Amino acid sequence: MTQTVWLNGCLTPSDEARIDPSDRGFTLGDGVFETIRARNGMPFHLARHLARLVEGARILGIPVPHSETALALAIEDVLRANGLDRAAVRLTLSRGPAPRGVLPTGDVRPTLLITAGTLPGPLPPARVIVAQGVRRNEFSPLSRIKSLNYLDSVLARCEAAAAGADDALLLNTRGNLAEASTANLFLYVDGRWITPAVADGALPGIARGLLLESGPVGEACIDMDCLKRAEAGVLTNSLAHRRLASIGGTVLNSAHTAFAALDPN
Amino acid sequence: MTQTVWLNGCLTPSDEARIDPSDRGFTLGDGVFETIRARNGMPFHLARHLARLVEGARILGIPVPHSETALALAIEDVLRANGLDRAAVRLTLSRGPAPRGVLPTGDVRPTLLITAGTLPGPLPPARVIVAQGVRRNEFSPLSRIKSLNYLDSVLARCEAAAAGADDALLLNTRGNLAEASTANLFLYVDGRWITPAVADGALPGIARGLLLESGPVGEACIDMDCLKRAEAGVLTNSLAHRRLASIGGTVLNSAHTAFAALDPN
Repeated sequence: MTQTVWLNGCLTPSDEARIDPSDRGFTLGDGVFETIRARNGMPFHLARHLARLVEGARILGIPVPHSETALALAIEDVLRANGLDRAAVRLTLSRGPAPRGVLPTGDVRPTLLITAGTLPGPLPPARVIVAQGVRRNEFSPLSRIKSLNYLDSVLARCEAAAAGADDALLLNTRGNLAEASTANLFLYVDGRWITPAVADGALPGIARGLLLESGPVGEACIDMDCLKRAEAGVLTNSLAHRRLASIGGTVLNSAHTAFAALDPN
Repeated sequence: MTQTVWLNGCLTPSDEARIDPSDRGFTLGDGVFETIRARNGMPFHLARHLARLVEGARILGIPVPHSETALALAIEDVLRANGLDRAAVRLTLSRGPAPRGVLPTGDVRPTLLITAGTLPGPLPPARVIVAQGVRRNEFSPLSRIKSLNYLDSVLARCEAAAAGADDALLLNTRGNLAEASTANLFLYVDGRWITPAVADGALPGIARGLLLESGPVGEACIDMDCLKRAEAGVLTNSLAHRRLASIGGTVLNSAHTAFAALDPN
């Protein structure tokens, strides 16, 4: 279905929008993105998302070609053009078209794309596995930014699907839990909510940050022994919170009273 | 400069070739590529490159939409259309346009792009550093395929450039050498040539494979102590062999008689 996207300053039908074949986003995954929930044309926690996009771009050395105000207006335009009420917005920033070679050249013309689609409805509690085929690299700055290098998550999610599960938890290279394929992980263990630290390979998610600031949640190193003691769990990202039904076949309490502590109100 | 590219079966001017904004190559780095040296319209070691592309696609679960014969003909067409004698050819295969979400859908329409440019000339011996900011993840299948997730290499190369070096060597997460940012590493240590194993995070490079098969080279676990004993070194990829001038400021012998052992004839 044709939608309206915003590409480098212009609203364009999606089937006419053109990414150049030499775009480093396409050739090297050289860029960052954000996924933002919106309702009634208003994106949630936009300032935090844009700050993270800017920080990711700074780490990669990609200039952000539009002001945060211009991007906020562009998001409003995309939401309006697509007539979306409950929406998932995506901002993608790549280093743009470039000649062959890994080292970026001085002449950077970044690509900025904004798309929006209907927000998926709420999902039942998730059955997850611990991915065996891939681990998250806490030794790379990429574990701390939302880059376009997303194949480890794709592989983990494919492994989950092949096992009949909804999602996969990823260990880091030292064998501690990092996160799920597209969400942060919160576990209720020994009477408190804990979540892996960014140093252990967790993406600093926006929803995660809000819970750490406002809720009774702490960072912790979560190894497999700790995971086995979990009574309940939640996956969070900017689009949804999803309770855990089971981990590797071990059933959790998806109606645990502890969930009340994570409610926004 | 406008070149002629081959995109999904058609020769097209590069400034008209269009990658869809929803292409998973662009949104997630979901794909693989090959870089191939060609001379007089003939690509070197094409069968090996296509076999590696097919193997990488199999690991990612991406169907290859053209036969190896068709791809060989397409490469010839691109070389002819661009009038290139000494060329660097790139094949890029992505999972193609798709709706939002990490899990691939059943309806896959892969994107296959072939481009070619002038082969860079020989380079002087390289001054390299050992990257401090990023390590290569030997716990991911991506370390063994040539995927579009290339940002760790981009970051390592940027670190090298900032340090005034030509390239960076990457350690794996256990602190052993894996490779350089875009090349395999060979070191002359204790009287023999060694190269990191694929299990230590080395990409199974085509030039590397040929040297292991034909030359007096063996795989070895190379830690920092071993690195310090290196008398000479070479970086290899499909476009070039490049001798090492220095590692982290320590000068190597870039005219070592041991290089003769690596000569093809």
